[in-house]
Amino acid sequence: MEANQFREFGKAMIDYTAEYLENIRDRRVVPTVKPGYLRPLIPENAPEKPEKWEDVLKDIERVIMPGVTHWHSPRFHAYYPTANSYPAIVADILSGAIACIGFTWIASPACTELEVVMLDWLGKALGLPEEFLACSGDKGGGVIQGTASEATLVALLGAKARTIAATKKKYPELKESDIVARLVGYTSSQSHSSVERAGLLGGVKLRSLQPDKNNKLRGETVAQAIKEDREAGLIPFYCVVTLGTTSSCTFDCLDEIGPVCNENETWLHVDAAYAGSAFICPEYRYLMNGIEKADSFNFNPHKWMLVNFDCSAMWLKDPSWLVDAFNVDPLYLKHEQQGSAPDYRHWQIPLGRRFRSLKLWFVLRLYGIENLQKQIRTHIGLAHYFEKLVKTDDRFEITEEVLMGLVCFRLKGSNQTNEELLRRINGRGVIHLVPSKIRDTYFLRLAICSRFTEERDIDVSWKEVKEAANEVLNGNSKQ
Amino acid sequence: MEANQFREFGKAMIDYTAEYLENIRDRRVVPTVKPGYLRPLIPENAPEKPEKWEDVLKDIERVIMPGVTHWHSPRFHAYYPTANSYPAIVADILSGAIACIGFTWIASPACTELEVVMLDWLGKALGLPEEFLACSGDKGGGVIQGTASEATLVALLGAKARTIAATKKKYPELKESDIVARLVGYTSSQSHSSVERAGLLGGVKLRSLQPDKNNKLRGETVAQAIKEDREAGLIPFYCVVTLGTTSSCTFDCLDEIGPVCNENETWLHVDAAYAGSAFICPEYRYLMNGIEKADSFNFNPHKWMLVNFDCSAMWLKDPSWLVDAFNVDPLYLKHEQQGSAPDYRHWQIPLGRRFRSLKLWFVLRLYGIENLQKQIRTHIGLAHYFEKLVKTDDRFEITEEVLMGLVCFRLKGSNQTNEELLRRINGRGVIHLVPSKIRDTYFLRLAICSRFTEERDIDVSWKEVKEAANEVLNGNSKQ
Repeated sequence: MEANQFREFGKAMIDYTAEYLENIRDRRVVPTVKPGYLRPLIPENAPEKPEKWEDVLKDIERVIMPGVTHWHSPRFHAYYPTANSYPAIVADILSGAIACIGFTWIASPACTELEVVMLDWLGKALGLPEEFLACSGDKGGGVIQGTASEATLVALLGAKARTIAATKKKYPELKESDIVARLVGYTSSQSHSSVERAGLLGGVKLRSLQPDKNNKLRGETVAQAIKEDREAGLIPFYCVVTLGTTSSCTFDCLDEIGPVCNENETWLHVDAAYAGSAFICPEYRYLMNGIEKADSFNFNPHKWMLVNFDCSAMWLKDPSWLVDAFNVDPLYLKHEQQGSAPDYRHWQIPLGRRFRSLKLWFVLRLYGIENLQKQIRTHIGLAHYFEKLVKTDDRFEITEEVLMGLVCFRLKGSNQTNEELLRRINGRGVIHLVPSKIRDTYFLRLAICSRFTEERDIDVSWKEVKEAANEVLNGNSKQ
Repeated sequence: MEANQFREFGKAMIDYTAEYLENIRDRRVVPTVKPGYLRPLIPENAPEKPEKWEDVLKDIERVIMPGVTHWHSPRFHAYYPTANSYPAIVADILSGAIACIGFTWIASPACTELEVVMLDWLGKALGLPEEFLACSGDKGGGVIQGTASEATLVALLGAKARTIAATKKKYPELKESDIVARLVGYTSSQSHSSVERAGLLGGVKLRSLQPDKNNKLRGETVAQAIKEDREAGLIPFYCVVTLGTTSSCTFDCLDEIGPVCNENETWLHVDAAYAGSAFICPEYRYLMNGIEKADSFNFNPHKWMLVNFDCSAMWLKDPSWLVDAFNVDPLYLKHEQQGSAPDYRHWQIPLGRRFRSLKLWFVLRLYGIENLQKQIRTHIGLAHYFEKLVKTDDRFEITEEVLMGLVCFRLKGSNQTNEELLRRINGRGVIHLVPSKIRDTYFLRLAICSRFTEERDIDVSWKEVKEAANEVLNGNSKQ
């Protein structure tokens, strides 16, 4: 493909993108295809000869769109939002054009340097403690990870390295494998599945602790677990606190847990994957009270801050635990400026990395802080609007306090009734929700996901829920 | 940013991209900036109010480009290539527009299904054994990882799970931590640094074995190590074979090592990150003789097959070791079609994933197999052309057989002379190379990286090398 064809094709794709997104409301939110739908639609082998770009463009509607779940439809209320914005898409074109692999500073200085400064911009916009920022001149700083799962794993590996080093110092006779076998980390049973998975991947025990009746992990629970484990000869090393759980957007008691971790030399990682974006609004920062006790903090601008995936922002007070623990330094990656700027390859699992900070730069500048705040406030307002609608119907109950853009609700009655309700809602094909379950109570989650969502969309969603409830409760449907 | 502004901005960026890439030859390949250059060029904080896109576009030349190392310049010969093509850039726009997170099939069926079929297209184009392909109807199949590092780690974790399960079955009295402490993997001292790092991350021993005098890891070396380790009570579980090492593009003896691994129930992972793309040309497939013995195979279309980063293709004969070992399955991720299509989140470290197979689809269709083959053959031809030029000058020696697009060479003489040579070459600012060292011999690596490279560029590169050599050997420079 020559440059002139690219100019045509690229611009056609820009137009396609605008049309797709501006009219996304009209598409069925979840497709009706069955597993295996796609294979018969395309040839069995890649073509020998090049095809025309016009034919590829045409195939998007024929092959791809019938199987797309439209995450940016105002009718999509599943999981949590994933970001999508015009500035981020344009920034990604530039990232693709430059296509550097920023594993070291010299591999493309702009790639590293913009990331350092953007993580400072972002950290300041959130009101993070100075110690996390590179501009403080301390050890701390930020980095873009691919996902919150990776941030959790990276923090766990840093914690593991730190505790192994400390334990070896105290008990030089212990073998490393014996230390690892005795390490134990903590998290709430409500934390994201990726926390448990980080434990499995990292080959260490993670205890799943019970939150209180409001689903919050409490300081005393962590303190008690640490005490028990120390008595049993184990070595506490890591604790993950969630600000905004996936199931119900609940906030663990960071201000209680922080001091417990600090006193017990237990690395405190704060996972605010979804809710962290809200801290750009000063009125929500009370929800991260105690953040100054954390060793690492992570949230996903690629969820709720209009920066397309992947862009998971992570700050560490002392990245040297990562840099030193997994530092393999072949000659072909050495350079003369080592040490005077971060080599981000040491801060992450993969070696290679794209120029992702361009997305942050474009989004922060082309929205401005005030519009990013507005998007958060609008979503939270829409969640409260839906909550209000649910409360007008006394067949329903709200199962969790609505703080962010998520409403947890259910029909009063059995889990089975609610499972049937969800099946009907999703089966009608207009909106899409996923369920969750806490302490054997099954409920529905309605997340505000799209930047296109307005009150009229929430009216539609509520109508869908109500009519599905009528079907379930009156048994008056054609199944 | 509204849709109409996006149309303007997006199209302006398409034009910028075409102009940047078509004229990349004219830019200085490595920037002259010093660490910290960028921070003073932009404000200390993100703006409160939105800025104009025209101002952002203008800042690319002012802020970003002075710090960019131009990986796609024909003057860039460092590391290995990273891909950059117009079809991939356009596909990424579409991926950004759809912006689904394909962690499960239902989260966007097209995202999973196109990936399954594209990995089949690609596997067939490379001539991989049927057992690796999903279309075989067996367990095997392919997946897109972010990087080869992740593929190596994922394979290691699968191997670890498989061997732990087998050992527990044989010796039910053994504790898991005792098994892990006895696990041992193998790789060549010439394998990529990410292999060693995978061992560190996975918390298992990896032995670095000596290759033969041609820098190839041999079957008997692995067999001997396994024998020794078994006698010492260890449990061999994993072996990484490299096809095309980073230092010198050397190929381990896969056909010898495969049977040794199979006989010893040791998971064989083949890392062909760079060189794997060449197997699209039938005449290079002899270099992967023995591939049918491997448990997993990985190469990076994002290196040498014109698919922009990230797109690392991995095939596994039996992915169930991964799926089952790290399967955490919360209610919000369950769906009714589980089991009838892959849920790729189980195949990788992160949970979230972009719609990356679009890039493969666009590149394979818009180049066609014949043009992808042509690009490989051209690069290899250019490497041989440079090799020929080096051989015309008897001050130089070629240190490794040239098989792919990499030439390893040095001035006859001391390491110090060659270190000085490299410093001069890079200091002149026209071309960029990195060095490597094998068995205390320091040499220079010239990799053919850009899809724009022509013979006239190689003439320039050779002139640069020769003139720098004149400076070093005649001491006639102004330092």
